[in-house]
Amino acid sequence: MSISILTIRWINGNVKIIDQTKLPGKLQYITCRDVTTLWKAIRRLSVRGAPALGVSAGFGVLLGIKTFKGKDIKKFKKHLHKTCDYIGKSRPTAVNLFNVLDRMRKVVDEYAGESVNTLKSLLRTEAMRVYQEDRKVCRQMGNYGGRLIKQNDQVLTVCNAGALATADYGTALGVFYSAKRMKKKFKVFSCETRPLLQGARLTTWELLRAKIDTTLICDNMAASLMQKGEINAIFTGADRIAMNGDSANKIGTYNLAVLAKYHKIPFYIVAPRSTFDQKIQSGKQIPIEQRNKDEVTHFGNRLTAPKQVKVYNPAFDVTDYKLITAIITEKGIIYPPFKANIKKKFS
Amino acid sequence: MSISILTIRWINGNVKIIDQTKLPGKLQYITCRDVTTLWKAIRRLSVRGAPALGVSAGFGVLLGIKTFKGKDIKKFKKHLHKTCDYIGKSRPTAVNLFNVLDRMRKVVDEYAGESVNTLKSLLRTEAMRVYQEDRKVCRQMGNYGGRLIKQNDQVLTVCNAGALATADYGTALGVFYSAKRMKKKFKVFSCETRPLLQGARLTTWELLRAKIDTTLICDNMAASLMQKGEINAIFTGADRIAMNGDSANKIGTYNLAVLAKYHKIPFYIVAPRSTFDQKIQSGKQIPIEQRNKDEVTHFGNRLTAPKQVKVYNPAFDVTDYKLITAIITEKGIIYPPFKANIKKKFS
Repeated sequence: MSISILTIRWINGNVKIIDQTKLPGKLQYITCRDVTTLWKAIRRLSVRGAPALGVSAGFGVLLGIKTFKGKDIKKFKKHLHKTCDYIGKSRPTAVNLFNVLDRMRKVVDEYAGESVNTLKSLLRTEAMRVYQEDRKVCRQMGNYGGRLIKQNDQVLTVCNAGALATADYGTALGVFYSAKRMKKKFKVFSCETRPLLQGARLTTWELLRAKIDTTLICDNMAASLMQKGEINAIFTGADRIAMNGDSANKIGTYNLAVLAKYHKIPFYIVAPRSTFDQKIQSGKQIPIEQRNKDEVTHFGNRLTAPKQVKVYNPAFDVTDYKLITAIITEKGIIYPPFKANIKKKFS
Repeated sequence: MSISILTIRWINGNVKIIDQTKLPGKLQYITCRDVTTLWKAIRRLSVRGAPALGVSAGFGVLLGIKTFKGKDIKKFKKHLHKTCDYIGKSRPTAVNLFNVLDRMRKVVDEYAGESVNTLKSLLRTEAMRVYQEDRKVCRQMGNYGGRLIKQNDQVLTVCNAGALATADYGTALGVFYSAKRMKKKFKVFSCETRPLLQGARLTTWELLRAKIDTTLICDNMAASLMQKGEINAIFTGADRIAMNGDSANKIGTYNLAVLAKYHKIPFYIVAPRSTFDQKIQSGKQIPIEQRNKDEVTHFGNRLTAPKQVKVYNPAFDVTDYKLITAIITEKGIIYPPFKANIKKKFS
């Protein structure tokens, strides 16, 4: 299924992204000709979503090494590492970004004897591979997850785990696209996802384009729907998954997982292998990005709270593995016990 | 403790209210010289909060009967009932409004033999009594509830159950004002309360004026705070309480109650007798106001979601009595079993 949303592409030596801060009002593109422009676009969430950040990291490295002149391999490696370090400081939580930076570093380590030109070419191949893999694994996850959706289901999602969060298809929303392709009839409720409204602005926009029945709710209305028996399953993406299954995702996800437990509704995480952090055993080790208070106190340029008020504005929370029914990956669906089954699936 | 917020007053034969849609930007008053102006102010939430709606209903009746000319008691009674019916159609959920309208109707029934002028005077006395009672019971609830706050507690509230939701002191926030008067040190987290941001706009404004340590959060961040052990108790108001303890309150309250249960945090409702609906046995019978989709899809005049998206926008939800630790009233704190203890307290 083509959903014709091209979130991020490598075109003529530049990175072309949809400026997601402008959606749904305008479908506008930004061409990033240097790594700083891309870094800023990541920072202000013009491009966001863990898999899309992974793809961005790969392309970002290509932008970074464009400016390297000369044939000194040592200097080139230093330049590459500096670029990777710089990109790694854009946003801290999504591990896909760091996983891809590690892959890019590894290319240079593995082909240590090659010339600068060859290394540049190998890096380019690796970044394109990351991009193509993302497109492929999204469709694989969609196929596994789509089967979990039953006729006439009403499902809930939060933030945007769609084409706009990946190269072009989506994780949680990829499940919906696949279910649609399987001719299933279902309805989606999209949590608006304060403060930046990715659910209201991006998810509903994507789903309506795909002609999926979509209802927007404020985040605080999900419990009311569940109480009435209106939700059959919850599907969300993830930004980083620890080896015990603890999953960081957009703020509010943990809330939904607790509600799902209370109302006995299955709660699914949809995420590729690249979202798993093999280095950490528990969610407690996941760094959570704290963002600016203005995101909460302002709407556009309008101040909607007293200027002097204090604000708590974490971008993510961590859902305890005990609250997760299953994790849908490109290698299949992982059920509890997660620690053993994640290891088995990815070893 | 005077907190010098005069939400609603009867001045020179008119109703003067704070226009709460303008806060926190401007502290601006509206003078309602006729019942239609007040009705519209209620409808667009310039004045809101269950107890304040009760006071508004009483004053609204006075505005309505101002225009009655003549001495025909039968016609006067008809005019009064028409006025009450009209006010009763402004908003459906807060029972205080209906309870006060019943009181106003009863005045005319009880003094059936009196002249129109005497009835007008008696109605005026009754409306002023409603106003004065509200001021008094808020302080009584505050005194009972304030004792529940321990030194260095961090408490959470939703929407605005403060001076702006009552004549001038508040229900849940009245508890905080009283705790402050008792010299307790504590912090308040205020859920912004989408879609109309009463928590961001009104509660933080009130609490900061009272020099109470206040942090604003988005509604979907409450779970994250509870997970970290940062919340010791939750206090909210109510719009209607059934005789089994089921409590309707601002949308998102039920969500917080489920989270409180999961995290073993006490969850308190603060509401006067006038918020109890003696006619209904369970929350299932409480009518829930559904509001316009524009409240969710727009911010000010700015569209923040695709125009054609469907929206679910209930103004309230109902919290199951099983999730409530206690209900703080002007007659003392009611603990479970609620059915028996509510009956005992108010009979």
